[in-house]
Amino acid sequence: MKRYALIVAGGSGSRMGSALPKQFLEVGGIPILMRTIDAFANMKDVPEIILALPENQIDFWRELIEKHNFQTSHTVVKGGASRFQSVKNGLDKLQGGGLVAVHDGVRPFTPANVLDEAYKTAEKTGSAVVAVELKDSIREIDGDGNSEAKDRAQYRLVQTPQVFGLKNLKDAYAQPEQSRFTDDASVFEAFGGKITLTQGAYENIKITTPEDMVFAEAFVKSL
Amino acid sequence: MKRYALIVAGGSGSRMGSALPKQFLEVGGIPILMRTIDAFANMKDVPEIILALPENQIDFWRELIEKHNFQTSHTVVKGGASRFQSVKNGLDKLQGGGLVAVHDGVRPFTPANVLDEAYKTAEKTGSAVVAVELKDSIREIDGDGNSEAKDRAQYRLVQTPQVFGLKNLKDAYAQPEQSRFTDDASVFEAFGGKITLTQGAYENIKITTPEDMVFAEAFVKSL
Repeated sequence: MKRYALIVAGGSGSRMGSALPKQFLEVGGIPILMRTIDAFANMKDVPEIILALPENQIDFWRELIEKHNFQTSHTVVKGGASRFQSVKNGLDKLQGGGLVAVHDGVRPFTPANVLDEAYKTAEKTGSAVVAVELKDSIREIDGDGNSEAKDRAQYRLVQTPQVFGLKNLKDAYAQPEQSRFTDDASVFEAFGGKITLTQGAYENIKITTPEDMVFAEAFVKSL
Repeated sequence: MKRYALIVAGGSGSRMGSALPKQFLEVGGIPILMRTIDAFANMKDVPEIILALPENQIDFWRELIEKHNFQTSHTVVKGGASRFQSVKNGLDKLQGGGLVAVHDGVRPFTPANVLDEAYKTAEKTGSAVVAVELKDSIREIDGDGNSEAKDRAQYRLVQTPQVFGLKNLKDAYAQPEQSRFTDDASVFEAFGGKITLTQGAYENIKITTPEDMVFAEAFVKSL
């Protein structure tokens, strides 16, 4: 079945304390976004890669490609005002059938077997959302400062990729945007889709804070 | 108010793929457990430090202290068959009033301000459980492979220290052990205690897996 990877990079540098949007920060000398793209390009069964990028970052991305002599084939589409709009814009460019993996641009360390397993599961069940078990205890809070212990075995932390049948995901993204849409699974589910979870990996981090950059640099050196 | 820190180290090396229990692994040349003890010893208002260690690791710990010329004052007590029993054994040694922070032996990077804030909050409210917001989306699973998106803003990942009035925590630990006691907060709560959450830190990791060691080595270098 035809495989697509839609990589969404919309971040600014604000939470990182950096002027440069975090997807462009270098880890081991290579911009994070290039590492993310190459995680898919290095698969045995290489998907067609689409990158959704804010319009005002596209020229900078072209310069980076030049500077790093980045050869990996991908198509750049204009992102939207939100992650939801960016995914929607990306999906609008894809026609026909197949599977699409939506993936965070700042999640560069997804192991190849996690990616492959996600596509294979989605081919069987219609969806595959990569998730990991919790290492820490978890509590639910309410608005009044009260909290309650929950059983961590009953929860999973959700990562990306999140893989779906292309047609179904396009239909789901035809819904109006809602604030509770924090990932593609929630959009797909609101449209009546059923979610299958597949095993993620602890190193499959979303680079968000300065501590994540410390890990990222060290992780690259450890490879 | 008198401050105690009860550090609990019971881990084996199994999840780390290491023969050496993880609390003894070196990060930047210093065993993790020494770093954890020193996080408390480096506070402005230094608590009395008690270390609960499995009986069969106590001689090895003494050798490590010798080898590293580790000078920080602490009392070693024999741990039990479970984390619950180890905490209980440690609490049994402490008499009178004051506050006790229970802390994971393999959580070496707790910032001093997080520790201090936890003691201060517990002095006011009777408890302080250090926790952080979730970076990832979260789903609740059931036994049938179904899962449901939850609002991550309504959850906190629980870290240590967890600080309580000593007498109250001793009373709570007089309960019979239950499998749902994954941390001190759950024990305290089952006894009717009210939990206050205080802000943790993302670098306050519990070193559990090989990826955590990668982060730990890099984090120490970045200091």
